[in-house]
Amino acid sequence: MPVRVAVNGFGTIGKRVADAVSKQPDMVLVGVAKTRPSFEARIASEREYPLFVGGEGRVEDFRAAGIAVEGTTDELFRRADVIVDATPDTVGREQVPKYDAAHLRAIFQGGEKPDVAEVSFSALANYEAARGKNRVRVVSCNTTGIVRAASVLRARYGIEQWDATLIRRAADPAETRKGPVNAILPNFQFPSHHAPDAQTIFPDLAITTTAVVVPTTLMHIHVNHVRLRKPPASTADVIAAFQETPRFQIFRSWERVEGTPQVIEYARDHSSPRGDMMANVLWENGIHLDGAELHFFQAIHQESIVVPENIDAIRAMFHLAPDAASSVAVTDMALGLRK
Amino acid sequence: MPVRVAVNGFGTIGKRVADAVSKQPDMVLVGVAKTRPSFEARIASEREYPLFVGGEGRVEDFRAAGIAVEGTTDELFRRADVIVDATPDTVGREQVPKYDAAHLRAIFQGGEKPDVAEVSFSALANYEAARGKNRVRVVSCNTTGIVRAASVLRARYGIEQWDATLIRRAADPAETRKGPVNAILPNFQFPSHHAPDAQTIFPDLAITTTAVVVPTTLMHIHVNHVRLRKPPASTADVIAAFQETPRFQIFRSWERVEGTPQVIEYARDHSSPRGDMMANVLWENGIHLDGAELHFFQAIHQESIVVPENIDAIRAMFHLAPDAASSVAVTDMALGLRK
Amino acid sequence: MPVRVAVNGFGTIGKRVADAVSKQPDMVLVGVAKTRPSFEARIASEREYPLFVGGEGRVEDFRAAGIAVEGTTDELFRRADVIVDATPDTVGREQVPKYDAAHLRAIFQGGEKPDVAEVSFSALANYEAARGKNRVRVVSCNTTGIVRAASVLRARYGIEQWDATLIRRAADPAETRKGPVNAILPNFQFPSHHAPDAQTIFPDLAITTTAVVVPTTLMHIHVNHVRLRKPPASTADVIAAFQETPRFQIFRSWERVEGTPQVIEYARDHSSPRGDMMANVLWENGIHLDGAELHFFQAIHQESIVVPENIDAIRAMFHLAPDAASSVAVTDMALGLRK
Amino acid sequence: MPVRVAVNGFGTIGKRVADAVSKQPDMVLVGVAKTRPSFEARIASEREYPLFVGGEGRVEDFRAAGIAVEGTTDELFRRADVIVDATPDTVGREQVPKYDAAHLRAIFQGGEKPDVAEVSFSALANYEAARGKNRVRVVSCNTTGIVRAASVLRARYGIEQWDATLIRRAADPAETRKGPVNAILPNFQFPSHHAPDAQTIFPDLAITTTAVVVPTTLMHIHVNHVRLRKPPASTADVIAAFQETPRFQIFRSWERVEGTPQVIEYARDHSSPRGDMMANVLWENGIHLDGAELHFFQAIHQESIVVPENIDAIRAMFHLAPDAASSVAVTDMALGLRK
Repeated sequence: MPVRVAVNGFGTIGKRVADAVSKQPDMVLVGVAKTRPSFEARIASEREYPLFVGGEGRVEDFRAAGIAVEGTTDELFRRADVIVDATPDTVGREQVPKYDAAHLRAIFQGGEKPDVAEVSFSALANYEAARGKNRVRVVSCNTTGIVRAASVLRARYGIEQWDATLIRRAADPAETRKGPVNAILPNFQFPSHHAPDAQTIFPDLAITTTAVVVPTTLMHIHVNHVRLRKPPASTADVIAAFQETPRFQIFRSWERVEGTPQVIEYARDHSSPRGDMMANVLWENGIHLDGAELHFFQAIHQESIVVPENIDAIRAMFHLAPDAASSVAVTDMALGLRK
Repeated sequence: MPVRVAVNGFGTIGKRVADAVSKQPDMVLVGVAKTRPSFEARIASEREYPLFVGGEGRVEDFRAAGIAVEGTTDELFRRADVIVDATPDTVGREQVPKYDAAHLRAIFQGGEKPDVAEVSFSALANYEAARGKNRVRVVSCNTTGIVRAASVLRARYGIEQWDATLIRRAADPAETRKGPVNAILPNFQFPSHHAPDAQTIFPDLAITTTAVVVPTTLMHIHVNHVRLRKPPASTADVIAAFQETPRFQIFRSWERVEGTPQVIEYARDHSSPRGDMMANVLWENGIHLDGAELHFFQAIHQESIVVPENIDAIRAMFHLAPDAASSVAVTDMALGLRK
Repeated sequence: MPVRVAVNGFGTIGKRVADAVSKQPDMVLVGVAKTRPSFEARIASEREYPLFVGGEGRVEDFRAAGIAVEGTTDELFRRADVIVDATPDTVGREQVPKYDAAHLRAIFQGGEKPDVAEVSFSALANYEAARGKNRVRVVSCNTTGIVRAASVLRARYGIEQWDATLIRRAADPAETRKGPVNAILPNFQFPSHHAPDAQTIFPDLAITTTAVVVPTTLMHIHVNHVRLRKPPASTADVIAAFQETPRFQIFRSWERVEGTPQVIEYARDHSSPRGDMMANVLWENGIHLDGAELHFFQAIHQESIVVPENIDAIRAMFHLAPDAASSVAVTDMALGLRK
Repeated sequence: MPVRVAVNGFGTIGKRVADAVSKQPDMVLVGVAKTRPSFEARIASEREYPLFVGGEGRVEDFRAAGIAVEGTTDELFRRADVIVDATPDTVGREQVPKYDAAHLRAIFQGGEKPDVAEVSFSALANYEAARGKNRVRVVSCNTTGIVRAASVLRARYGIEQWDATLIRRAADPAETRKGPVNAILPNFQFPSHHAPDAQTIFPDLAITTTAVVVPTTLMHIHVNHVRLRKPPASTADVIAAFQETPRFQIFRSWERVEGTPQVIEYARDHSSPRGDMMANVLWENGIHLDGAELHFFQAIHQESIVVPENIDAIRAMFHLAPDAASSVAVTDMALGLRK
């Protein structure tokens, strides 16, 4: 019997997780919750996702807009085995008593602090740790990007030290109230929260992260400098290691992918839903190994990169796959993330 | 027997027209031409579009990249009944002798001057004028937007005078070498070229257009002020007129579509390929009729709005449909542009 | 004896008004109020402007930062004849009881509603109306731009109808928390608030305004279409009319001022303090008269355009000048706004 | 007798160097060269800088615009002892034969390759090396920023390794034809050219630099990670070292300088000409020393940072100061760069 999944919040992450759940062979989407009518609610309705009113929302507002709803989140929670919490940052924590009261298992996003859950999760890194758990937290987009790459490098070469500069997009494409319009804004917290967040997955990872915000909406870029313990012979070995790992996309020089806009253009051309790019994006000519010193860029699509991780988290919690590789394979096939 | 269509140029317009042709019941895509290997060539290859090397391109460059090509444009031209020219602005005109030599009919884009073709074209306005023609020019994105809206208003209410301010996006999303980054740039030509371009379709349309460029990549916005000859009773009548016409999308207030980013977000959510929006976009609360004075905003997706017009142009040239309405209906069904 | 002026608020407008007051021969700056220490407070301190703590601010916070303050606004108010309220939008109204209690005359900015004052003001238009008044409201930057231009055209040619499209900057340069980053956002209110605001100065002006927000920080651009009652013979006459009026700057074609960035670059090069441009900016080749129909662009520097108007308002309130022309001449000479 | 200085090119750098020269007690500006009339030529004229026509420019074009010129660069070169070449990148090298023919000493900018000159120069680092030289190259804005900071750290603590990520502004404020509008663009060259350029000054400096371009116009930001050889006891020592060095501006936390826009706002408020910031900008809470590992941000104003270095280069070439400290002191006093 498929696991019954509810999604609380139908914004950037929630709507993508809902779509992803609906494509999995071993899960069923029992509904999504939204607080206010909007074009996104209309989309949920057109996709025939059972729609429920959450938060401070009012059923009447949906009815006035002609959007059918099946009730409030109380009803939604009754129909589910697990809730994927995709409410805004820090709101997830406030939902915990409700989820508990409904005897629901729950997945939280990286905007919540780690102690909201039993374990922080990234599929390539610690799938086993989420097995059978009741509450799992999928780490944030930037942390997911780091941890995936660390999964590749750590197992093969050992990581002596990782220093990453995160050049963060200022807002998601449709977040029109956030700025800045013309600025570079350093994050004066050092290390930024991403380093300790990565250590919730790899506690022994020696890592520092520094972040700045820049006025773009498409993707983050990470500038990575990693000192390897047992470096391979050449850059080509590193490229091969990334290439053989799921959820990495490596562009070659002749593809003329100059930066984040061409990555997204590729995803749009590739018929990826919403033009999403769920893989870590690397560039063949943006990877340089010099002795033990590895420098590489990666681009991270903040809107979608955690979506497959949410799916794998469900599979781990409910023992739906024998191991990480199997779960990842099923997820990626369902989502069209073929290499 | 389906019309054999070739597409010369596989950039913003060309790749979309190629996809659109391949979805039509009465056309077959015999190939696309590109000058250099790139991620877009890879996409063409993955879609199994026969690929040919055009312009100054070299077959060896494609082979080195592992991209199979079937020859040069000479070969492509031999296989086609009609070429859709989607080369960069003003390059189309240079191709004319080649198309002539190959006895090819041809469609040009709005970046070429009107005299490149026998007729300038917009499907809702002058479908009949393109019937049986050898060379047709589809007007540019902004002109298409204006002409479509004029088609609605002119027939019903008569247009005394139209004044439009065009707030133009600076660059397409992946055009990373164009600016400005932080500016508003007026176009000092008055009227801007859009007014005379609209008059290539409606010679008697009294219209002025003024244009400015702003640093965004998503869509243009037109601010329209139209004096109607026989105005309807209310704004609601105007809304109804747009709503009953193909290729218009009207957002309602509760949908919370605040501007161009939410329009594109809607298109992405709606599973529109590439997040495209081929309709003119209006807002219910952005339409105001006061006596004979109509004010309305419309958003125009510069990447895709002319795509259905290219398809209809082919159909008109080859007598594939009995009339405009039939052609538009077939095109829109094939492209998923249901209202 | 010079008029004693206090400035409440030391942000974008307040700091400029303070500088402007300190340069006038018939005014003295008795102090400025700020709520929190910041680099701007440091500047006030370096300029030896008496500094007072306003709003919810705490004297201790300034002392901890090493910034000397002379007291709170209660003390400031005692030292002044008139207060220029430059607090954030709508906060000005809340200050009225305090100003009243201190028997202070007051100037408010355009972010307050008109009824906060006895009269709304723009120096070229209705200087006389502010004579001897206790409370005057200087209209907002965009309205000031419109009203100045209307002052030129109305007296000379009569205005039958004015339609303006306002392309608004999204945020001031240092407002890093406002967006959008990549969007065009229509203002669905029609007309936008600027038309009725202009009518607080010219009640009989037939005007509609439509506004959109775009991601830039430098200046607004207005696209104006005016139908004149008694049009002059040629565009050159209109240009001359603007040129002979204070507070208009007209760029010629050979100056290569392509848009807002070059206007600001000119102001920076011209040693204008802060790179400000307090004049309405027009372009010779952006003015087109066709019969009675006048089309012209103007650029409006939102940070500084109302500064000279605040000075003239003080002069009118206190009968410091015999007429508008005299006040404007003194203000402009003191501010270096020579034509 | 003051050194007679000519400036070839009156764009971003040239106009600033001209202003700076005209303020020095031991130099005289004999003229500036420009190729075309523009608002900048008008400014030169208003400042009474002798103006000469350079490059492909035509005297008639200036006369038609009403801008007086004194001749061509041939005449300018005759009047000067030294030319500051501020022509566009790579154009400087083409001028060398002309400068040679005129027996002119010359200063080049960082856009030229190092071998254009006898020595690459940065005042705090290698003033002595430029003494008496005929051709000196002032390194680029980013390199100047790095070398200045290295001058502070190297002498005091020794530098084991420096890794810098340079987040570069896409275009200068008035460069409206450069993009990108919405992107992060990695520079795939590793290290970027800045590391070897810094080594033209400090050949033994172990440094890597990685660069990305982002859509902003105001300043670059460097994210620096330096391993010190003999680290001081605390972060406060490092802060003190920067604070006691000329051409460093350090903002404190209470000043609320969140990023590049507030830095520029400070400079504008501070009455710095053009709102320029010729110092390296650091933040007290953006400097972190952890053992030997130093992390710090610095912001670099690309338009102006090399201006004082050009002045010092002249002084070194002509033996106008006994040592670097004296030259820097005179330059900074003349330019108002008091700490």
